[in-house]
Amino acid sequence: MGTGKNISSFSSLEVMNFLNEISSNFPKAVSFASGRPSERFFESSTWFDAISRFTAYFADKNNISVTRANSLLAQYGKTNGIISDLISKHLLADESIKCQPDQIIVTVGCQEAIELSVKSLCQDKNDVVIVRTPTYIGITGVCELNGIELASFKAEQNNTLDGLRASVDALERCGKTPRVLYLIPEFDNPTGDVLSEQERIEIIKFCASKGITILEDNPYGMYRFEGIANAPMFALDEYGCVIYLGTFSKTICPSLRVGFAVLPKKWFGCELQAKKFYNELSQRKSFITVNTSQISQGIVGGILLREECSLTNLVAPAVDFYKVNRDTMLECLENEFAGHKEKISWNTPSGGFFLSVYLPFKFKAEEALICAKDYGVLVMPLSFFALDDSDDRNVRLAFSYAEIGEIRQGIRQFSEFVLNHMQAMEHENDLSSTCEP
Amino acid sequence: MGTGKNISSFSSLEVMNFLNEISSNFPKAVSFASGRPSERFFESSTWFDAISRFTAYFADKNNISVTRANSLLAQYGKTNGIISDLISKHLLADESIKCQPDQIIVTVGCQEAIELSVKSLCQDKNDVVIVRTPTYIGITGVCELNGIELASFKAEQNNTLDGLRASVDALERCGKTPRVLYLIPEFDNPTGDVLSEQERIEIIKFCASKGITILEDNPYGMYRFEGIANAPMFALDEYGCVIYLGTFSKTICPSLRVGFAVLPKKWFGCELQAKKFYNELSQRKSFITVNTSQISQGIVGGILLREECSLTNLVAPAVDFYKVNRDTMLECLENEFAGHKEKISWNTPSGGFFLSVYLPFKFKAEEALICAKDYGVLVMPLSFFALDDSDDRNVRLAFSYAEIGEIRQGIRQFSEFVLNHMQAMEHENDLSSTCEP
Repeated sequence: MGTGKNISSFSSLEVMNFLNEISSNFPKAVSFASGRPSERFFESSTWFDAISRFTAYFADKNNISVTRANSLLAQYGKTNGIISDLISKHLLADESIKCQPDQIIVTVGCQEAIELSVKSLCQDKNDVVIVRTPTYIGITGVCELNGIELASFKAEQNNTLDGLRASVDALERCGKTPRVLYLIPEFDNPTGDVLSEQERIEIIKFCASKGITILEDNPYGMYRFEGIANAPMFALDEYGCVIYLGTFSKTICPSLRVGFAVLPKKWFGCELQAKKFYNELSQRKSFITVNTSQISQGIVGGILLREECSLTNLVAPAVDFYKVNRDTMLECLENEFAGHKEKISWNTPSGGFFLSVYLPFKFKAEEALICAKDYGVLVMPLSFFALDDSDDRNVRLAFSYAEIGEIRQGIRQFSEFVLNHMQAMEHENDLSSTCEP
Repeated sequence: MGTGKNISSFSSLEVMNFLNEISSNFPKAVSFASGRPSERFFESSTWFDAISRFTAYFADKNNISVTRANSLLAQYGKTNGIISDLISKHLLADESIKCQPDQIIVTVGCQEAIELSVKSLCQDKNDVVIVRTPTYIGITGVCELNGIELASFKAEQNNTLDGLRASVDALERCGKTPRVLYLIPEFDNPTGDVLSEQERIEIIKFCASKGITILEDNPYGMYRFEGIANAPMFALDEYGCVIYLGTFSKTICPSLRVGFAVLPKKWFGCELQAKKFYNELSQRKSFITVNTSQISQGIVGGILLREECSLTNLVAPAVDFYKVNRDTMLECLENEFAGHKEKISWNTPSGGFFLSVYLPFKFKAEEALICAKDYGVLVMPLSFFALDDSDDRNVRLAFSYAEIGEIRQGIRQFSEFVLNHMQAMEHENDLSSTCEP
């Protein structure tokens, strides 16, 4: 467990660079490295209709002509955005989240929402952001770049709360203030893991008692392949300690750059504090991006209107596609690693974009580079996302972007590397055991 | 002169709030408050063509099909943007700026470029940003929200360097590091003033000798009504100390949210340092907005392609419109304040969106509120943009947004307030001089 110190050997910035470099240096390699959504489901041909639809809605709502609405939509706009009413309906329909439009701030992708929230919450030098390790580099990067202290704990199966409690205790003992807990409870990036509803409730109760705000990031929630969706922590929160972060990068497409944050109605029980906090986010936003592109908001708004504010039907083909991809990857892993299952294992996420593979040897930047260079497959060491060394033998495989044929080919190539590496290790062991001095 | 301390009575956040509040509380008032571009020249109907044009160009440039280009443009994209080649041609054609695409980073409006630059340049607690007072709240807001110290000096006509030098000296004496000088040299916001070429050269030379990076913000440079354009400081810089900040919010439209920063080829003479700095901006951007919307970049790119990378023809009707607006406003001021010219004066900016009026009494938030409430006209006290009290009697009037009839009406209403206020003051003076105890 890391307490108040980032002991990751790789910084978020280095991870970004590494990913960009291997992607551009090995363009022909099969990539399981980047968690991009598949491009099959982008419907850019429908955007123009979407903007027109939203413009008509905006004109009607504000009792102005369509011409005037067109002008206003091309102008500077409200810092907090103009589609919060539609987003609140979408959240109710698709995530069982009840909120009012004035609890929502529309941001330039979810990343801006993370930046605004963390900067607003952690203003004292003693304030600390807590994460599970491994975690998404979008949160560690914001902390690193803003000099905000990060603490991490290793979440074992079904006892996340124990790890969190120990981390908070340790921080408090050295005079630090645990201020934020960042989580992707549904299909975590990088692990693909899910927090059970019971765990969510316990964590919320604990955080509420400690004055810790939970940032619940939910980019993958709509991509469940089987089983029943867990309620988002925001929906389970009775204390007003959860901020919900969402994005349309996965459901519609990334180039829109539209995300959002939803604040509790009463932040730790106080409506006035919630309003103040909302205004602080809004003011910070006005000095970073002024407002989120109204063209992008118009596209999102138009699609939400067309879909009657539920994106379930829209994402259904993508859910099917990702499920088949996951199944194919699991099947390939089964086949390629048959006979090595006592040494190599992986999880079976019930949704999302990622799974992780456990290997019997350290897999870090050097090994990832060999995979790219000699085996034509791009994968990410889980240690890149880790704040301690507990994940040195794990690899993240994204199954969202590749096509089925590529998955078969890529897993074959990856397994060749793994099995060759294991053989070389055994050979080395043999040599060292036979060549005694 | 303020040294190392923001002594403004109004913070940038309060200014934003004030502007938003009077605009929404007095929607029928004539507004000279906001420096928005006129909506007459937005051509949203041409955007779809622009995206198609850019997509074809992008496909051709990358040797891929248009279908593939469409997919890639809807996907996550390069942090630094995909239209730098077109922007560099535009800068050469319209601003005589020579730069390579790899010196340009495309940002979510110019505001993100300010944030990224200032955050990257000022990482030590002793680092200070210097501004002329009054100045644009986009720079003061970034400093306030990030705890970066601001110093200001009052620039008198043609001796900006003296003020700057005194400010730098004072900072150095108290162990501070002057790190950034922020300037809008061509048609300043809020004053409308222009720095002469001679002054620009002197300031560059001085900053180069002190290791101070100049942030040259140029949103209004293409809006010159008469006289000869001054070379941008970036084009005059032989030392590599100027970062140029640009935007398409005024030339195309604000809702695109596309701006950019251009870095010197050799930052203070060193190409390696320039590259490192470029990478730092890029990394910071990746943890705030990931990348600038490729839809917006596609629209800008398509328009640049259509216009063969010079926006001169495109903005010509807007330049004419703003010139007529400025002339109308000047004429109205002449007429309304005839007979009071020894007490009331104003500048005659040769371009841009703003002029400023000097009054014989203090004009602050209270007076602005009376103007809005009782006289139906929204104006901005220059003190809102000031870091000392030297501008308490000045008012900023934006002539960019209102139509001619509104300008005549608004200036009449503004002058009524001013003349009534002066009369009341005289009456008070009379009373106080006749009612001696």
